[in-house]
Formats: sequence, structure tokens, C-alpha cells
Amino acid sequence: MSSTADAPRPPGRPRSVRADEAIIEATLDLLAEGSTIEAISVEAIAARAGVGKATIYRRWSGKDVLLRDALRTLKGNVPQPAGRSVRDDLITLVGAVGHAIDPRAERIMPCLVPEVNRSPEHHALYQNIIEPRRTVMREVLQRGVRDGELRADLDIDVTMAMLTGPMLIQRVMRWHPDLDETTLAEKIVDGVLGGIRAD
Amino acid sequence: MSSTADAPRPPGRPRSVRADEAIIEATLDLLAEGSTIEAISVEAIAARAGVGKATIYRRWSGKDVLLRDALRTLKGNVPQPAGRSVRDDLITLVGAVGHAIDPRAERIMPCLVPEVNRSPEHHALYQNIIEPRRTVMREVLQRGVRDGELRADLDIDVTMAMLTGPMLIQRVMRWHPDLDETTLAEKIVDGVLGGIRAD
Repeated sequence: MSSTADAPRPPGRPRSVRADEAIIEATLDLLAEGSTIEAISVEAIAARAGVGKATIYRRWSGKDVLLRDALRTLKGNVPQPAGRSVRDDLITLVGAVGHAIDPRAERIMPCLVPEVNRSPEHHALYQNIIEPRRTVMREVLQRGVRDGELRADLDIDVTMAMLTGPMLIQRVMRWHPDLDETTLAEKIVDGVLGGIRAD
Repeated sequence: MSSTADAPRPPGRPRSVRADEAIIEATLDLLAEGSTIEAISVEAIAARAGVGKATIYRRWSGKDVLLRDALRTLKGNVPQPAGRSVRDDLITLVGAVGHAIDPRAERIMPCLVPEVNRSPEHHALYQNIIEPRRTVMREVLQRGVRDGELRADLDIDVTMAMLTGPMLIQRVMRWHPDLDETTLAEKIVDGVLGGIRAD
């Protein structure tokens, strides 16, 4: 055994992980307090996290990738559907739309809407955050088409918007005050699967 | 004939209408320049419109109703569907979602998203703006149920969210860069009417 292995481990996580977390936390705190994507600076993040700017630049090439990672952290892991039924998988994915594991999201997410319209770079940042989620939903829909459960001529992109849009406007803008969010994912999925026309 | 009818009419519209328009215009200009609903004041609107505060308060009881009228002006008249086919009427209504007749809307509307989350009063203002549009869509769906064209057990509120959501996220956030907006209303309506399940 090497002497390193013999030495008692320091308590908690390695220093580099702690610094990463402190930087992400500082970024999210500043956004939740009202800093815009435009205005937030690596200097301010470094000061808040108690690290030097060089520590940030060793881990992230710039503000945009740091923001992308921070905002992805806010939303939590991309949901992994069970892969058995298309209906169940879509309910899982639609239920996660506009949902975040971090309470700071409630202040940060709506503020992203004006921001993503401000420049192509901001819009690309937004797309970077949501594309991994669209990818999972796309795969479920493609599987449904392949298995003959969904229409062969399905427009996948429009269908993804049909599944995502109703939940997103409800979670981000409380579009309709009377909608019951606890059953909404299921109702959206069943509505989109079966249609609303009388048989 | 009275002497009033004989007298030549002054050119243009009556002064009171011109003042109303100037006040609405001033409100929209200030919002488009970045004033928040929170920060915008009747004083600032009066100064920009070149009228006294009393002129505003003679017409509107307060800032909230003035903002409601200004934001409704921005969006234009509530669309009146032709009333023949449910499909055609829904395409008209979905096509108008997130659409505004005034170019200042592009700056103002996304900024409303964080604002409507800030207080119950702001949320009520937002609901006041969109409820007349929901009413028209609700009537089309109720007519479809009554005529037997749509499912008898239709959840009208969820269906309205299913029709509105996909267009709104595309127009307000450009949710998916590849979606073709010119055909989107038709595709959403046909998708929601017919469902995506294979026959």
C-alpha cells in the first residue's frame, strides 16, 4: 500500500469538488437575487464563491458554459423514463417540464424568458439547457413510431411542442389559475395521444 | 339643424380621443424601453404623453387598468372566428396566440413573464389581458362538444392549454429553432383534434 492510501482521508469531499460547488452556488445565488445573464460577471461570481477568477477559468472556458452548467444544476438530472410504455414515459417527461429541484428556480426561470430573446448567444445558451431534455422525449416518440404505436407520419418536433407547451406555460406563467397541476401531465399526454375528436 | 351641426368640424379626431391615444402610446413606449410594471408610474406616463396626471385619472381609475388597456391595445382586437368549422376556428385562434399587431410587443411581452410571477396583482393583470381570448376559444370548444364533433367528456381548460401552449412557447421563447411558424397553428390543431396514436 502506498503512504497516500494509509493516510487518513480528509473529512468531506476533495477541495476541487467543493470549489466547483461553491462556484455553481454563487452563480445561482446571484441570478436568484436578480442579476441578469447579461450583467453577471465572472468577477462577481468569484467574489461570492470566495475563489480567484483563475480557479473559475481553470474549470470553465467562460461565463456562458458556467451559466449553462449552473442552470442545468438548477433543473436537476434529465429524467430517465422507464422505457416500457410510451404513455408512462411521456407522463414522466411532461411532469418534469418546467420543474426544478432547486427553489431558486422559481425566481430564475421566468427571468430567462426576456433574456433568451435578447441575443443569439443567450438563445443558444437556453437551447443548450433544454436540448438534452428534448433528446430524451424525441427518443420515446421515435420508439413509439418504430413500434407502430404512434402514427408513422408523426411530426416529432411539433409533437414535442404539443407535449411541452401546455405544462411550460402553466409552470412558468400560471397560464390558467384553475388548472390542477397534479393531474396535468397525465391529461396532456392522454389528450395528445387520443385526440379530442368524438369517436 | 342646430348651430353645432352647421359649424365646420375641427380636423382630425376630438381632443379627448387624441389624449387617450397619447396616454396609451406613452405607456407602451415606456414599457418597450424597459420600464417594469412595478416601476412605471402615472407621473412618468403623464410627462411622456404631455398631459397632466388629472387627465389620466379622469379616464382610468389607476395604473393597473391603464396598463391592462395598453397591453390589450398592443395585442390588437380579440380574433372573431368565422363560426363555421371547429377546425378552422381553432386555427384562427391558435394562429393569434402570442401574436401582436404592435412591434413593441416583441420587447414587452417576454418581460411580462417574470413580472406576472411577482405579485397576485400582476398575475391578475395578466389574467385580465388573456381571459377575453380564452373566452372565445372556450366557446368554440363548447360548440364542438354540443354539436357532437368533440368528445362529450372534454376537459375544456386542459384542451385550451394544449392548443395555446405549443404556440406560446414558440412565439415567446422560440422554444424549438426548427419549427416552421407558418404551418404551426394548423399542425397543432390537427394534432390535438386527431391525436398522435396510430389508428
